[in-house]
Amino acid sequence: MKALVLESVNTLSLRDYPIEETLGPYDVRIAINACGICGSDVHYYKEGAIGDFIVKEPMILGHEAAGTIIEKGEKVTHLEVGDLVCMEPGVPNMQAHEVLEGNYHLDKDIVFWATPPVHGCLRENVVHPARFCFKLPEGMSAAEGAMMEPLATGIEAAKKARITPGDIALVTGAGTIGSVVALAALAGGCSKVIITDVKQEKLEIIGAYDNVIAVNINSVNMVDFVMKETDGLGADISIEASGSPKVFPDIMNATRRGGTIVMVGMSNDPVPISMPVLQVRGLKIETLFRYTNTFDRAVAFVESGKIDVKPLITKIFTFDQSIEAYAYAAEGHPDTIKVMIEL
Amino acid sequence: MKALVLESVNTLSLRDYPIEETLGPYDVRIAINACGICGSDVHYYKEGAIGDFIVKEPMILGHEAAGTIIEKGEKVTHLEVGDLVCMEPGVPNMQAHEVLEGNYHLDKDIVFWATPPVHGCLRENVVHPARFCFKLPEGMSAAEGAMMEPLATGIEAAKKARITPGDIALVTGAGTIGSVVALAALAGGCSKVIITDVKQEKLEIIGAYDNVIAVNINSVNMVDFVMKETDGLGADISIEASGSPKVFPDIMNATRRGGTIVMVGMSNDPVPISMPVLQVRGLKIETLFRYTNTFDRAVAFVESGKIDVKPLITKIFTFDQSIEAYAYAAEGHPDTIKVMIEL
Amino acid sequence: MKALVLESVNTLSLRDYPIEETLGPYDVRIAINACGICGSDVHYYKEGAIGDFIVKEPMILGHEAAGTIIEKGEKVTHLEVGDLVCMEPGVPNMQAHEVLEGNYHLDKDIVFWATPPVHGCLRENVVHPARFCFKLPEGMSAAEGAMMEPLATGIEAAKKARITPGDIALVTGAGTIGSVVALAALAGGCSKVIITDVKQEKLEIIGAYDNVIAVNINSVNMVDFVMKETDGLGADISIEASGSPKVFPDIMNATRRGGTIVMVGMSNDPVPISMPVLQVRGLKIETLFRYTNTFDRAVAFVESGKIDVKPLITKIFTFDQSIEAYAYAAEGHPDTIKVMIEL
Amino acid sequence: MKALVLESVNTLSLRDYPIEETLGPYDVRIAINACGICGSDVHYYKEGAIGDFIVKEPMILGHEAAGTIIEKGEKVTHLEVGDLVCMEPGVPNMQAHEVLEGNYHLDKDIVFWATPPVHGCLRENVVHPARFCFKLPEGMSAAEGAMMEPLATGIEAAKKARITPGDIALVTGAGTIGSVVALAALAGGCSKVIITDVKQEKLEIIGAYDNVIAVNINSVNMVDFVMKETDGLGADISIEASGSPKVFPDIMNATRRGGTIVMVGMSNDPVPISMPVLQVRGLKIETLFRYTNTFDRAVAFVESGKIDVKPLITKIFTFDQSIEAYAYAAEGHPDTIKVMIEL
Repeated sequence: MKALVLESVNTLSLRDYPIEETLGPYDVRIAINACGICGSDVHYYKEGAIGDFIVKEPMILGHEAAGTIIEKGEKVTHLEVGDLVCMEPGVPNMQAHEVLEGNYHLDKDIVFWATPPVHGCLRENVVHPARFCFKLPEGMSAAEGAMMEPLATGIEAAKKARITPGDIALVTGAGTIGSVVALAALAGGCSKVIITDVKQEKLEIIGAYDNVIAVNINSVNMVDFVMKETDGLGADISIEASGSPKVFPDIMNATRRGGTIVMVGMSNDPVPISMPVLQVRGLKIETLFRYTNTFDRAVAFVESGKIDVKPLITKIFTFDQSIEAYAYAAEGHPDTIKVMIEL
Repeated sequence: MKALVLESVNTLSLRDYPIEETLGPYDVRIAINACGICGSDVHYYKEGAIGDFIVKEPMILGHEAAGTIIEKGEKVTHLEVGDLVCMEPGVPNMQAHEVLEGNYHLDKDIVFWATPPVHGCLRENVVHPARFCFKLPEGMSAAEGAMMEPLATGIEAAKKARITPGDIALVTGAGTIGSVVALAALAGGCSKVIITDVKQEKLEIIGAYDNVIAVNINSVNMVDFVMKETDGLGADISIEASGSPKVFPDIMNATRRGGTIVMVGMSNDPVPISMPVLQVRGLKIETLFRYTNTFDRAVAFVESGKIDVKPLITKIFTFDQSIEAYAYAAEGHPDTIKVMIEL
Repeated sequence: MKALVLESVNTLSLRDYPIEETLGPYDVRIAINACGICGSDVHYYKEGAIGDFIVKEPMILGHEAAGTIIEKGEKVTHLEVGDLVCMEPGVPNMQAHEVLEGNYHLDKDIVFWATPPVHGCLRENVVHPARFCFKLPEGMSAAEGAMMEPLATGIEAAKKARITPGDIALVTGAGTIGSVVALAALAGGCSKVIITDVKQEKLEIIGAYDNVIAVNINSVNMVDFVMKETDGLGADISIEASGSPKVFPDIMNATRRGGTIVMVGMSNDPVPISMPVLQVRGLKIETLFRYTNTFDRAVAFVESGKIDVKPLITKIFTFDQSIEAYAYAAEGHPDTIKVMIEL
Repeated sequence: MKALVLESVNTLSLRDYPIEETLGPYDVRIAINACGICGSDVHYYKEGAIGDFIVKEPMILGHEAAGTIIEKGEKVTHLEVGDLVCMEPGVPNMQAHEVLEGNYHLDKDIVFWATPPVHGCLRENVVHPARFCFKLPEGMSAAEGAMMEPLATGIEAAKKARITPGDIALVTGAGTIGSVVALAALAGGCSKVIITDVKQEKLEIIGAYDNVIAVNINSVNMVDFVMKETDGLGADISIEASGSPKVFPDIMNATRRGGTIVMVGMSNDPVPISMPVLQVRGLKIETLFRYTNTFDRAVAFVESGKIDVKPLITKIFTFDQSIEAYAYAAEGHPDTIKVMIEL
C-alpha cells in the first residue's frame, strides 16, 4: 500500500510499501484520513534516532491519526464499519507486570507506531485493536481527530498534576505540546494558565484562548510575572513542555510551596536541579511518558466544546504533499503549531 | 446595630441588637452589603435546631455574605479599607489538632456564623479575621460575592471527588448546593454533568448552562439515563446534593466501577447502604463538611468567567425586607434557587 | 480427577470428576498440596448461593490453595516445574475496560475459582496462568502458602486504608479475615491494632500477637476503649471485617476526624449510615472486593518474618477427610480460625 | 543559664548565657535532659552557615532534645509537670497560608531551634508550645527521646514515599538519617530495605536490624544488586539520604517503573537529572523538608517495639563534655551514628 517511508536519515519517499496485516477478532482495519506530524517524526527524519531508538530499516512514519473503519473483527462490539475514529498508537504486551498495575504505558515492550522498528500509520490503512480506537462525535473532522493524540498527552499532564479546582498553572513552552497542555489544564480544572515561550507567533496563537496568559520570557522575567499573577504565592502547578533545561531553576522558584512540577518536555541534556530549592519549597516532580486512558477524555472535551483544537492546526497538506509537509515541519516556522496531512 | 434576629422558633425581628466587637491586629471590620439565605438559616428559623445545634437565645442569622472593609487591624497587609470582600464564615481554634493536620474545618470548636450560640452576619457590620476575607475582583457585585460561600462548598465537593480531567459527573439535587456543585464540577475538570431533581423549574435554571444535562427523575429512570450517557459505564463521580436517602441505591448503580460518591446533602434519616453493591462495584464514599481553602478558588473561577453565579440569584430583597425574604425562602418556591438580601 | 464436589446444597462428595484442562503457553499445571476452607465455600455448601451467584450444577469447591508446578507452558519464564506456588484465584478478561484502568478485580466477567459456574481447585491439579502464581520461599509450607489468599485480602484492606506510618487501626471482627487484616495493618505501617469481637477464643488467638489489643465488646464499650487508647482522638483507620451492620454507628464514632473506614465484611442487610455523623467527622468509606497485585506482597511479608500466619491455621485435615473438614468448618467452632486441607 | 554557645565559626563555649523566656498560657518550660548532635549543628560549628542561614551572633546550638516539664501554662491540659517529653523544634507562624493548607513546615517564617538567628536548646531549660511537646512512655530514656527528632524525619520520608504494604525500599546513605529512614520504612510498611553506603562500619550497625540488607557500594554495583533482590523489577521506593549527587543516575535505574524517589539528603551541588530516564521509567520525585505531625508517630513506634533507636546512639557525653562531644562529632568517625549529650 502507499505509505510515507523514511528510507534513511533525511530521505523520505511516498511509495508503495508491501505490508500485510491480519485482522484479529478484537481488531479493526482503518482507512487513514488524517495524520499529524509530531516532533518525534521530524526527529527520526532529520536525525535517524531518538536516544536508544535507532532507525535501521525503512520505516513508515506517523502516529497521530484518525480514520474510517473499513473492516472489523468478529468480537468487536462498540465500533462499526464507517465509524470515524482516532487511535491510541501504543499497544502494550498484556502479559507485562505494568498492565495489571495500571501502568500499561510503562511496559518496556509496548508496540508504538513509528518508533523503530515499528511502522507508523501514515499510509492507506492500518489494523489496530478496537479497544485503542475511539469513535469521534458527529461534526468532528478527521484532522481534529488526529489532534487527539497530542491532546491525550496534554490530558495526561493535567492528570499527573492532580489539579485542585481553581489552581493556577504555569506552562513553559508554547509549541503543540505546551498548547494542548495549557488547554487540558484549563478544561481539567485550572482557573487560568500562564504560558511562556520565546517565540511571539506561537504565544499569540495560544494566547488567543480565554484564560490563557501568554508571556514572552525574552522580555519578561518569568518568576516576577508569575508572582504578580498569583499574589506572590507562585503557580499551584507548573508543567514543563519546552524540553529546555534552561527553564530551571526559574520554574522551581515560580511554583508555589507544596506545589507540583510535571516534566513533559524531554531534554537530552541532564537538567541540573538544586535539591535544597526543591526541598525548602516542598515541591514534587511528576514525570510524563505518553498516556493511559486519556483518549476518550480528549474526545469528550472536544465534543463538549470545552477544548477547541482547530486553531492549533495551522497548516494542512495532502497525502501527495507528504514529503513537502515534512520539509515544512522540519523548518520550524514560528507561526506553525501543528502540521496536518489529510488523506 | 441593626440586625435580623431569630428571637425564637418562627419569630424574626429586624431590630437594633447590642453587639460590640473589638478589632484585633489581624482582623478587619466589614460593612455587610449582601447576605444570602441558606437552607440552614431557614431550618433554624422554622425548627429552632439542626441536630445538636439548638437555638436557645436570640441569634442573628446569616453566614453567606459580602461587604466592604471599613476598618483594618494594624497587621493586616493584603486588604485595604474600601475593598469589597467575601468572607469564609468559620474560624477554627488554632490550637486544635485538626489545624496542623490540614483539616481546620473538622475542629469541633470552630466558631461558625449563625450556628448557635454564634451570631450570624445579617447585620450592619462584623469583625472577622482578615485571612478569612477574600477580595472580590473589579466588576463583581456584592450579591455575587455572597454566592462565594455556597460556591466554596461546591468546589470542596469537586475537590473531594478528585476529578480526573474529562470525568462525567452525576449530581443528585438541583437546589442551590446541587447547582453550585454542578458548576464547580464542570469548572473543576468534568466534561459534562448530569443533574437530577424532581422540580422542573429548578432543573431549567441549571440546565441552561453549557454541558449540564438536567433530568427530571419523576419521569426518567436515573440509572438508565446515566448508563446511556456514559456508554454503559456509569458516572465517573457522583455527588449527592439532595439530602434524600431515596437516591440510594440508584446513585450506587449509576456510578462507574471504581468511582467515587461524594455525600454533600445531609439527611437526618440514616441512609441504608447495601455494602455488597458498593464493594462489588469498588466504590468509595467521600463526605463533605463545609470547606477548607476554597474561597479564593471560588472567586478565581468567577473572575475567569468559568463560573457565572448570577443566574442562580433568582430573588433579591432589601435589608428592610429581610423578614419577608425569609418567609419567601421558607415557602420553598420551585423556581427559586438563591434568595439574596442586599444592604 | 479426584475432587471435592458440591453436588447440591448440603451434599458434598469426594469423587472422581471428569475435567480436562489444556495448558496454554503462559499457563502452568499445579498439583494442589493444600487448600483452606473459606467462609464463601461454607456458604455455598450450606446455602447453595451467595447473592446472585447460585450453584446450579455440581461444582468443585476451594480457592485458597498452594501446590507444586508439574508442567509449564512454553512461554513461562519465571517459574519452573517443581516450584511450590500459591495462586491468585481470579483471572480477568484482559479485554475489559477495568484492566487498563488498573482495576482488574472489578471486571464483571472475571473467572474466579469456586464461584458458580466456575470450578474451584480442591482437586488433584489445576491449570492456571503463570502470572497469577507466586513462588513460595524456602521453608514456607503449602498450608502457609494457602493462607496467602486471605492474607492478600488483608493486604488489600491495608492498601485501601492508605496507612500513614504510625497509624492506630481498629479492626472489627476477629475471624480469619479480621485476623489477617490486623496482621497486614501492623506489617503495613500501623503502630498498633485494636481488634474487637464477641468470641473470646478467637480474640485470644489474634491477641497473642505483638501490638494487637484484643477487646471483647460483649463486656467493653468499643468507643470508650478506642478513645482511651488513642488519647481521645479515635482510630486513624477502622477496618470492618465482621460483616455485621451492628458495628455501626460505633465504628464511625471510634474513628478519628478525617479518618478512613474500610468495609471488608459483607453484610447482606443494608447498613444504616447516619450521614451527618460521617460528614461532621470528615470520614470517608473505602470498600474492598478481593485484591489487585497483593499476593507477592503477602509472600514477601511472610518471608521477612513480619507476618506469621501459622497460628491462624488452627485445624488440619487430609484430602480424604475433606467432607469431615467442611462439616467441622460449618459448625463454626469459636476456637477455630482457618481450617486447612492438605493433599 | 548555662548553654553551649557557638561564639563564631569553630569556637564553642559552654558558659552562662543570659536568656529569659516568658511562659505563655499554651507553653511549657522544659529542663533539658538529652540533646543529640545533628549534622546541621556540626555544619554551623565548622562553617558558620548553611546556605542562606548565616550565624552572625553567638547562637546556642542543639535541636534534637528531650527533657522534663518543670512549669506549665494555665491552658495546657495534656501534659503535667514532671512529664518526660521530646520536642518538635519548629514553631510556625499560625497566620501563614501554609498552616491552613496542612503544610506548616513550609511556612517561610517558621522559628526553628539552632537555625540562625534562633537559639537552640542545648541549655538548662527552654520554653516551648505544649502542642509541640510529646510525652514519652514509661521506660523510654531521655536519650531515646532526643532521637525522636531524626526519627520524625525518617517517618516523614516514609510518609512521602506513600508506601504500599510490602514495598521493597532502597535507601542510599547509612548515617543517622539514612538509618532512621530505613527503620521508618520498615515499620511503615516495607517488607525489606536495602541500604547502601561506602562506610562499612556504619553499614554494620544498621545491617544488624532484621530485614535490612546493608550493601557497600564500594565493592558492589548498586543497580545490579537491587535488581537481583527484586526479581529484576527494581525498588518500589527509593529514598536518597546521602546528600551525594553521585548516587544519580544509579538510583533512578534501581527504582521500579512507576516508583517514587524521595529526596531527603541535601546536596549543595545541583544534581544532574536525566529527564528521559525519569520519564520512560515513570518515576516521580518527592522532596522532604523537616516534618509535619510525625513526632507522636515516632514515639508510638518506639513504644510498640517496632523501632529500636538505642543501637543508633553510639556515643554519649555529659553536658560538661559538650565541646568535646562536638569535636568528636566533627571528626566524623565511621563507627558513629548519633553522638548524644546527656544533661
